[in-house]
Amino acid sequence: MNSFGTYYRLTSFGESHGPAIGGVIDGVPAGIAIDMEAVRTAMERRSPRSVSGATTRREPDTVEFLSGIYEGRTLGTPIGFIIRNTDARPQDYPDADGPLRPNHADYTYLCRYGLRDPRGGGRASARETACRVVAGAIAAAILADKGIAVRAWTESIGTVSAGVPDGSIPSDDDIFSSPVRCPQPDKSREMEAALDRARRDSDTLGGIVRCVVTGLPAGIGDPVGDKLQARLAAAMMSIPAAKGFDYGDGFAAAAMRGSEHCDLFTTGADGSIRTATNHSGGIQGGISNGAPVAMRVAFKPIASMPGREVSTVDASGRPCTLRLSGRHDVCAVPRAVSVVRAMAAMTILDALLAPR
Amino acid sequence: MNSFGTYYRLTSFGESHGPAIGGVIDGVPAGIAIDMEAVRTAMERRSPRSVSGATTRREPDTVEFLSGIYEGRTLGTPIGFIIRNTDARPQDYPDADGPLRPNHADYTYLCRYGLRDPRGGGRASARETACRVVAGAIAAAILADKGIAVRAWTESIGTVSAGVPDGSIPSDDDIFSSPVRCPQPDKSREMEAALDRARRDSDTLGGIVRCVVTGLPAGIGDPVGDKLQARLAAAMMSIPAAKGFDYGDGFAAAAMRGSEHCDLFTTGADGSIRTATNHSGGIQGGISNGAPVAMRVAFKPIASMPGREVSTVDASGRPCTLRLSGRHDVCAVPRAVSVVRAMAAMTILDALLAPR
Amino acid sequence: MNSFGTYYRLTSFGESHGPAIGGVIDGVPAGIAIDMEAVRTAMERRSPRSVSGATTRREPDTVEFLSGIYEGRTLGTPIGFIIRNTDARPQDYPDADGPLRPNHADYTYLCRYGLRDPRGGGRASARETACRVVAGAIAAAILADKGIAVRAWTESIGTVSAGVPDGSIPSDDDIFSSPVRCPQPDKSREMEAALDRARRDSDTLGGIVRCVVTGLPAGIGDPVGDKLQARLAAAMMSIPAAKGFDYGDGFAAAAMRGSEHCDLFTTGADGSIRTATNHSGGIQGGISNGAPVAMRVAFKPIASMPGREVSTVDASGRPCTLRLSGRHDVCAVPRAVSVVRAMAAMTILDALLAPR
Amino acid sequence: MNSFGTYYRLTSFGESHGPAIGGVIDGVPAGIAIDMEAVRTAMERRSPRSVSGATTRREPDTVEFLSGIYEGRTLGTPIGFIIRNTDARPQDYPDADGPLRPNHADYTYLCRYGLRDPRGGGRASARETACRVVAGAIAAAILADKGIAVRAWTESIGTVSAGVPDGSIPSDDDIFSSPVRCPQPDKSREMEAALDRARRDSDTLGGIVRCVVTGLPAGIGDPVGDKLQARLAAAMMSIPAAKGFDYGDGFAAAAMRGSEHCDLFTTGADGSIRTATNHSGGIQGGISNGAPVAMRVAFKPIASMPGREVSTVDASGRPCTLRLSGRHDVCAVPRAVSVVRAMAAMTILDALLAPR
Repeated sequence: MNSFGTYYRLTSFGESHGPAIGGVIDGVPAGIAIDMEAVRTAMERRSPRSVSGATTRREPDTVEFLSGIYEGRTLGTPIGFIIRNTDARPQDYPDADGPLRPNHADYTYLCRYGLRDPRGGGRASARETACRVVAGAIAAAILADKGIAVRAWTESIGTVSAGVPDGSIPSDDDIFSSPVRCPQPDKSREMEAALDRARRDSDTLGGIVRCVVTGLPAGIGDPVGDKLQARLAAAMMSIPAAKGFDYGDGFAAAAMRGSEHCDLFTTGADGSIRTATNHSGGIQGGISNGAPVAMRVAFKPIASMPGREVSTVDASGRPCTLRLSGRHDVCAVPRAVSVVRAMAAMTILDALLAPR
Repeated sequence: MNSFGTYYRLTSFGESHGPAIGGVIDGVPAGIAIDMEAVRTAMERRSPRSVSGATTRREPDTVEFLSGIYEGRTLGTPIGFIIRNTDARPQDYPDADGPLRPNHADYTYLCRYGLRDPRGGGRASARETACRVVAGAIAAAILADKGIAVRAWTESIGTVSAGVPDGSIPSDDDIFSSPVRCPQPDKSREMEAALDRARRDSDTLGGIVRCVVTGLPAGIGDPVGDKLQARLAAAMMSIPAAKGFDYGDGFAAAAMRGSEHCDLFTTGADGSIRTATNHSGGIQGGISNGAPVAMRVAFKPIASMPGREVSTVDASGRPCTLRLSGRHDVCAVPRAVSVVRAMAAMTILDALLAPR
Repeated sequence: MNSFGTYYRLTSFGESHGPAIGGVIDGVPAGIAIDMEAVRTAMERRSPRSVSGATTRREPDTVEFLSGIYEGRTLGTPIGFIIRNTDARPQDYPDADGPLRPNHADYTYLCRYGLRDPRGGGRASARETACRVVAGAIAAAILADKGIAVRAWTESIGTVSAGVPDGSIPSDDDIFSSPVRCPQPDKSREMEAALDRARRDSDTLGGIVRCVVTGLPAGIGDPVGDKLQARLAAAMMSIPAAKGFDYGDGFAAAAMRGSEHCDLFTTGADGSIRTATNHSGGIQGGISNGAPVAMRVAFKPIASMPGREVSTVDASGRPCTLRLSGRHDVCAVPRAVSVVRAMAAMTILDALLAPR
Repeated sequence: MNSFGTYYRLTSFGESHGPAIGGVIDGVPAGIAIDMEAVRTAMERRSPRSVSGATTRREPDTVEFLSGIYEGRTLGTPIGFIIRNTDARPQDYPDADGPLRPNHADYTYLCRYGLRDPRGGGRASARETACRVVAGAIAAAILADKGIAVRAWTESIGTVSAGVPDGSIPSDDDIFSSPVRCPQPDKSREMEAALDRARRDSDTLGGIVRCVVTGLPAGIGDPVGDKLQARLAAAMMSIPAAKGFDYGDGFAAAAMRGSEHCDLFTTGADGSIRTATNHSGGIQGGISNGAPVAMRVAFKPIASMPGREVSTVDASGRPCTLRLSGRHDVCAVPRAVSVVRAMAAMTILDALLAPR
């Protein structure tokens, strides 16, 4: 199905090269002021215009809201919205019975549906994520109202890594003023250079996005079936090109001893209980503990390498070659930062709205 | 909620130190022969008796099936089952208002429910996973009937790693004859030694489990909301102590170039389409491509370090110390192998049963 | 939430007097030819233009499909669609703090959401059902492909009843050539006369819609949690103004003896098992038995009585009077026939798509 | 699937003539005192011992609670429970390939599952409803804590009707002191006499149960997809032998004029808004309005007529006759009263727990 979330739920639709994409956001609490400027900003930050290494596809991505908001406030009813596809170029893609693009969903869609939409990736295109950014921006606005902030940024691109943060969390300004969404200016420049090299080589890069949620109270999540980390993992692994998810010390924890990894409890100046460290990443037993919820998402290098000829087969299994001329990102990471942020905001709000 | 899966769904219940745990498995197809011996074997392999580094809690874990199976075949009706807790020792645990165990769910449960079950971890205890192993063994039997095999094994414990496999998949005999569930005998011995050292130090270790599903046909999964990797990630991240999930090249893919990571399509001897390599881990665009589905799950070191005194606070926030005398595993990984296998089997069957 | 169905799922949005209504249909099987003319016909039949006793609100109700269908065939991806509200007149309605319309949802929405959309009934308006008719028309097309037909017609309006049918099922032509959707011409004229009398009295009428599904194979439905009659009842009782549902002999069965009500099994000419009678209404134990699925839905008289002054209170509880000048149906039944048909088609298809 | 409810969810299991039935209740709020005596009373009231016209099957129906409750209070974790089948007599039933019992689920189960459990009705037996009564009793206890009461009683058996109530709601004592669950003593005796006559004729009767929920605050329910009446209808129509549901004036409303059916708003002595009448049955636009929620459920006469020979076919379609010797109720209604009450309590609690 094409939905995310149980209590705050986005159901989206739309092929990459059809007339429009859009969605319905259900479960929105009533009476909340929505800053439309924040939605526009989120869309702009996802736009290829504002990042390095992005497709040259150019669309204003204007979101038309059709319901659920009246005079700037939510009604509690579903928010329907559409985004017209104004720069679709279906002719840039192989025919339905043409070459299968490697590492794309062409072959698996053919197996799943018994047919192939010749107009680009259809639902497999990252264009679908624009709808997530809309729903995420609204979720983020509702969370902000409760003092909860969601930040995501680029931790690495290819072999250039900005390293694990020291505990300080960058501002959105620091993040989004970088064309690769890395808040450390020197690393940002190194990453840009790496992207340039890859583009010249008709090659592509992957990378890692870090995401931190602050202000989430303790007690959010469920112990077995809907652990907060399980919901977050599902949300992140649903992003195109995502290959891995971890939280807290994550994969590094596998090589640590219990005495190193242990977050001892202590008492804050105000008498509140908190952990002295945050190896756990803000979640224990599936439920938030009041510390920042910290996670990472790994992205593979983009499959489409414009200008490079690759060998493949067509839909009938006949060997052939393929040289893509479409407009494609060199690296998903700078734009994926916006999607990670959106998915985190939706997932955290969903968990907050769960009955307790 | 306490359910896993949509079409093949386990709903479980039971506190670690209450009278029994159990569950209901719904969505089971009718008329399938269930080998009860396979269920017993799966339970035995999860049992602390058969692994290194495990708790000394000793229970026969006899599964009593109450419905859904008649004369060895499934009826299509829900399978209800219970497992009595015969070796519960609630007295080994702190009082409800006593010390909060660090890195456990004591504090987060208190915040979530406003109360604390003094009888050990309640639902947060890994004892809950016994129910998953039951449902997973039945799922694995149904999958085996369709030619689909699920294997899971220990890839690393602490800093001892058996390395990424060369493509060959170990047999269950190779895996489960190792007391740490590592099919490479030399590495298995190294891991046992590492566990011994940790136990002597009153410390604990983490590690990584690898899981591979073979025989899954292409076309299983959904493109946006229920990507196969998202379902698998949620299933794995719901396992106690799991901190990370990746599939295919996973986190390593983040540092690769597109030209390295690309799985070119080719044609098998029988004319079928397949990929020449499997960087993608058997899934493209959220849907299986016919190659083995390969994933990893990272586990943190176990939080309870018997014999070691740790500083903490009690439920009122007063500083105190805690020295655990309970029976605890030194490392979750050898037993988690059985749980990873169960969750993979349930998730894959769930995806197979989804309407298409 | 604003969804219907589990496997074939409509999620709709849109306020009656906002810019547009619309929805997303998810779970649509791939590769099915959709006759757009059938969708237009279904919309036309629901339109007030073509029935007696309807609102004078006039809109073309043009459905714009945005995804999921390409060159006349379903892609398997979600079908997004919108319908612009072109004849909205929000000024016809009381202010947000004005009189509460009796038997409307004004007061309950205020309690539920803490606010009141002043632009007419919002989601409570029957305008919302236009989206159901779209999704129902597509479902009916998919069902027709499998030899399953859904018919709905007016059985009574006010005290004029066409009686229980003799087993023959009227054609859509017979039904929809009647301006009140009653296939018996003499009764149709009586119903029209009753509507005229009610309108002259500034009053409104209720009635009963009958619905029959033919061609459904035996074995569809579930025994406990998703009984076919339970799904149908929920679908029908979600229609605005519906007050009752029954199937087979329904409420009349309560006064019958077992020996009267019993559907004996017999064997058809082709050796197939079938029942000699259909008191059961095509469902036994929650599962279809191959006989026609027959049900009724009772509708209350419409709450808005244009021109009649009624006493009420405003949103602050102050007594006041209200005389509605809006455009309203005298009787919901003729248009509800289209909605009952749509809900039946969606529900039956949903049950057919359920995994088994 | 075998679940009821979304937020307060019962998942049940168990065949009528297997070793046990039972279930898991998930979504139970934490920290609520549960009066086990109330659960026992509810079970006793459903028991055939305490009603007229019931099966002679005799079982203590002892509920063994296995989790979720500790020292008389809910933990917030799932409540698992089992009820042993101690008086099962599978030998009373036809063989798997024997006669199909008319108006039973034998044939439809065979079509649905491709096999037939020879041990009586399996999941189709009303024995399954014992689990609903357990979950309903716990729901009713939680509701009572909030001042919400659920009453159900017999309104008619066969052609003996106690008539629509005058607005006063009978006490549980008045209801359950009657062996047919009719609070009017004269009508209760008439109903008993009708049951005796039917039994002597080897025949069975149907009837109608009325249910009223008081104390529910205004604002509970959802406007489109989860209307309170749609949830209630689905819950009631899932009860074995239920053939119809209506609420408020129900089917009678179909013949009323709007001016008769209209619930005018007025102001209570305390300034609160309420309706002067309750034709609407406490729900407007899918959402409670603070008035009592009033509904009816129609039950068909029981299909099994012990001692009466009926013609039928066997599983291969060969004509045969069948004379049932099993122990069966003459009328489902007296025991169904307990099930209607349970389903109402579960459904109302489910709606109350929905996020808002």
